[in-house]
Amino acid sequence: MTQGRPAAQLTHFRSDGAVHMVEVGQKPTTLRRARARARVRLAASVLAALARNPKGSPFEIARIAGIAGAKRTAELIPLCHPLALTGIEVDVRRCRGGIEIVASVTTSGPTGVEMEALTAVSVAALTVYDMCKALDKGIEIREIVLLSKEGGKSGTYRRQPTRPAARRAAGKGAR
Amino acid sequence: MTQGRPAAQLTHFRSDGAVHMVEVGQKPTTLRRARARARVRLAASVLAALARNPKGSPFEIARIAGIAGAKRTAELIPLCHPLALTGIEVDVRRCRGGIEIVASVTTSGPTGVEMEALTAVSVAALTVYDMCKALDKGIEIREIVLLSKEGGKSGTYRRQPTRPAARRAAGKGAR
Amino acid sequence: MTQGRPAAQLTHFRSDGAVHMVEVGQKPTTLRRARARARVRLAASVLAALARNPKGSPFEIARIAGIAGAKRTAELIPLCHPLALTGIEVDVRRCRGGIEIVASVTTSGPTGVEMEALTAVSVAALTVYDMCKALDKGIEIREIVLLSKEGGKSGTYRRQPTRPAARRAAGKGAR
Amino acid sequence: MTQGRPAAQLTHFRSDGAVHMVEVGQKPTTLRRARARARVRLAASVLAALARNPKGSPFEIARIAGIAGAKRTAELIPLCHPLALTGIEVDVRRCRGGIEIVASVTTSGPTGVEMEALTAVSVAALTVYDMCKALDKGIEIREIVLLSKEGGKSGTYRRQPTRPAARRAAGKGAR
Amino acid sequence: MTQGRPAAQLTHFRSDGAVHMVEVGQKPTTLRRARARARVRLAASVLAALARNPKGSPFEIARIAGIAGAKRTAELIPLCHPLALTGIEVDVRRCRGGIEIVASVTTSGPTGVEMEALTAVSVAALTVYDMCKALDKGIEIREIVLLSKEGGKSGTYRRQPTRPAARRAAGKGAR
Amino acid sequence: MTQGRPAAQLTHFRSDGAVHMVEVGQKPTTLRRARARARVRLAASVLAALARNPKGSPFEIARIAGIAGAKRTAELIPLCHPLALTGIEVDVRRCRGGIEIVASVTTSGPTGVEMEALTAVSVAALTVYDMCKALDKGIEIREIVLLSKEGGKSGTYRRQPTRPAARRAAGKGAR
Repeated sequence: MTQGRPAAQLTHFRSDGAVHMVEVGQKPTTLRRARARARVRLAASVLAALARNPKGSPFEIARIAGIAGAKRTAELIPLCHPLALTGIEVDVRRCRGGIEIVASVTTSGPTGVEMEALTAVSVAALTVYDMCKALDKGIEIREIVLLSKEGGKSGTYRRQPTRPAARRAAGKGAR
Repeated sequence: MTQGRPAAQLTHFRSDGAVHMVEVGQKPTTLRRARARARVRLAASVLAALARNPKGSPFEIARIAGIAGAKRTAELIPLCHPLALTGIEVDVRRCRGGIEIVASVTTSGPTGVEMEALTAVSVAALTVYDMCKALDKGIEIREIVLLSKEGGKSGTYRRQPTRPAARRAAGKGAR
Repeated sequence: MTQGRPAAQLTHFRSDGAVHMVEVGQKPTTLRRARARARVRLAASVLAALARNPKGSPFEIARIAGIAGAKRTAELIPLCHPLALTGIEVDVRRCRGGIEIVASVTTSGPTGVEMEALTAVSVAALTVYDMCKALDKGIEIREIVLLSKEGGKSGTYRRQPTRPAARRAAGKGAR
Repeated sequence: MTQGRPAAQLTHFRSDGAVHMVEVGQKPTTLRRARARARVRLAASVLAALARNPKGSPFEIARIAGIAGAKRTAELIPLCHPLALTGIEVDVRRCRGGIEIVASVTTSGPTGVEMEALTAVSVAALTVYDMCKALDKGIEIREIVLLSKEGGKSGTYRRQPTRPAARRAAGKGAR
Repeated sequence: MTQGRPAAQLTHFRSDGAVHMVEVGQKPTTLRRARARARVRLAASVLAALARNPKGSPFEIARIAGIAGAKRTAELIPLCHPLALTGIEVDVRRCRGGIEIVASVTTSGPTGVEMEALTAVSVAALTVYDMCKALDKGIEIREIVLLSKEGGKSGTYRRQPTRPAARRAAGKGAR
Repeated sequence: MTQGRPAAQLTHFRSDGAVHMVEVGQKPTTLRRARARARVRLAASVLAALARNPKGSPFEIARIAGIAGAKRTAELIPLCHPLALTGIEVDVRRCRGGIEIVASVTTSGPTGVEMEALTAVSVAALTVYDMCKALDKGIEIREIVLLSKEGGKSGTYRRQPTRPAARRAAGKGAR
């Protein structure tokens, strides 16, 4: 299920075992992008209620919250570097059994924006929960994953599409 | 899969469809508690690497981040009320296929703390991802759910344990 | 133009001239409400462009930003008390020559929420500027005023409607 | 009244109508500066009371609040880019009928600082209101405008001085 | 040297050794006050330079920063409860060899404000350092201590004035 | 005691005496590092109690709080520039009479990170106080000092080790 091979190192830990915010000052400033996705399982009755809303939309609020959340990543995640983000896109769309949130974040800096993209979709998903919780407290946020990253020394990462067999094992959850 | 019956109303929306932060000033101040859970799927090789860390632990950092995150909920979720939280517990423990994070949040106030508990586990889970991402970018945060809430007019909610059949359909993911 | 008679005291200053955050611990906790308004002058061509936008609306974003801004008042205004706000409404509507933003904020606490209502409309107005500035950098935010306050020892305040004569002197600006 | 011709585009909206934080990673890093102004109308009795204050001054507090506020712009305005500001000046001076606040903000980055300058004067003006509201709740914040911007592809913008005729129509308010 | 007898318990730790934000929901809401002090050693030449400043004063800025800092205590100190502070006073005065900063913070709540008072003087002292560091990087912040606390179950605490003998011993203290 | 000779200028003040956030846009972007230290005096009984804690450690929490605090420096210190920090290390170790906290902060930017290093050790020290205050409210935070800075036009600064004689004189310092 988890792709890629474990590397040798937990980078946030020094050789003496204590945590630090890793020094990235010597790393080159390059364009970097990361994309992440969250799924929120919503009952059919909730999806139907959302559609009846005359004017605003929980998804619009969620999109704004996700964009704002990405900008606060370094305040929320203790060992994240503060970065001058250069672009943030958050999309919310219906999918089988609920909705799917995809965020794309870019920076021109010495380290990647994976955490910013993951934070964007998480905050957007929490906002959807908040908007809908009066209808159903059983809503599940599922499968917050990194879809891809580009730029930087470690190069490009792309999440492998889950194979049908794996998908069966992993559950048909929010799809 | 989703428990409880959808109610009639999306409370964050007024009758004209515009969003607002719902007026709770007339609601009684009572003790309220909410518990939420997140699961993070970690490959066996990642779990093994964590165990080798001599001193600190990603789980300790995650717990602190979750506690701090709960206090920032009203800054992250646009329509959440600012609340004087009276207690926050975050627990991180090994489970089948990864780890399980459970948060319990309490307040004495006019509205509930479901979003604070959900935010706590989300931020803690994102922190685990951050600590481990050098080992494996394929880590999945799965099943962020509300376990229970107590206090307030709508009374007690308890998530129904997923029945074996449902569990099978839902996937054996991070268990 | 300015209504009400100046009182004897600048409350944020002590008798020795130094500022402080005034002690309100002995004041009774009562329901308090404040309403404020801002006007943003927009050229006809900008208003027309906004209407053409297919999906979201700068006004929806502004409303969310205003609600979120109200919650951060005590971080922005040095001598404001942190307050557990119990309700926030922000409305954005077309008016002659542009748009009008009205915020209503409530709390159950020992001091009023005038600054929260004024901050809400200010942040919402700045957000409208931000959304429209590519069309016209000459946009003016005009007439940020307190419309009313209720609750607390000093009782109710209501802004007197500007009389026609005063209105003429004050300018027909954003009306 | 509003200068400049509306451009073709609301940049914060994509072609599908959804908002995003515009990608600026490809734009060159250049020195950028923006200046903004707010006026606060104060009754003569309030201005007189301020002058009697022995030690501190509401204007000093307002200046500090404005500088601090500029640094929080990207947290307040949902689609603003976080920027490493390189300089902030906030001046508060008496003018006809009240006070005038002018802020100048600079950065070396891929996008402009108009919103930072406008936020600085808005927060400073709100702080003046807060300091004086015990004397007069009828205080008006008027005419928050961008005075100029320099740097970047769109070049220099300078607000045209309001001509006497326009000034008459616009009101003699806080001058 | 340290006054008071160690109690049996590190309250932020549970019996299993994990940290939590202690539950205070059952504790009575009472008026609570805490006072703290910091000292900043400044060379005579620095003190002289400060006196020559025509208009503002580093001490005024420090006072504002200390008040604002107290309001952010729960964001800075991971296990602190968010509290609705009801009053904050920060005083900065000359003392032998430098300046002395004293803060008094009050709340009406279920837990004390010692950390808020200590944070206020620390942030004020850091601000003095920042204002003066171009003159002398060797400035020392010394002796951040709690002077007193009142209210709550544990009652009143007052720091015992250091006796001359103790002072001599203390001079070599933590080095 | 204080090293270095006072320079001619309080940089945060303009020639007219008003404060500003100094323009650094023309200064070259270079690698910069600063190290700071705080000492916390802890009674032997407190140190013994800490050692008995089975699992977490106040020092681990303090280290995380210090790292997070460094990232918030520009929000706490009014005239500090926001900077994209590239590395943060915080170490907590036993010393005679208590503990010693050392922080090292780096950036690649146009101005130094002295305040970030000093803020890191201050927040870490306050966190140690918070964790231990149930045992002893008399804990003292002592000697927050800058150890060194490197990079930038003003070059390298290194705090001179206090000589025994100076230490004696310093013992009576700012009291």
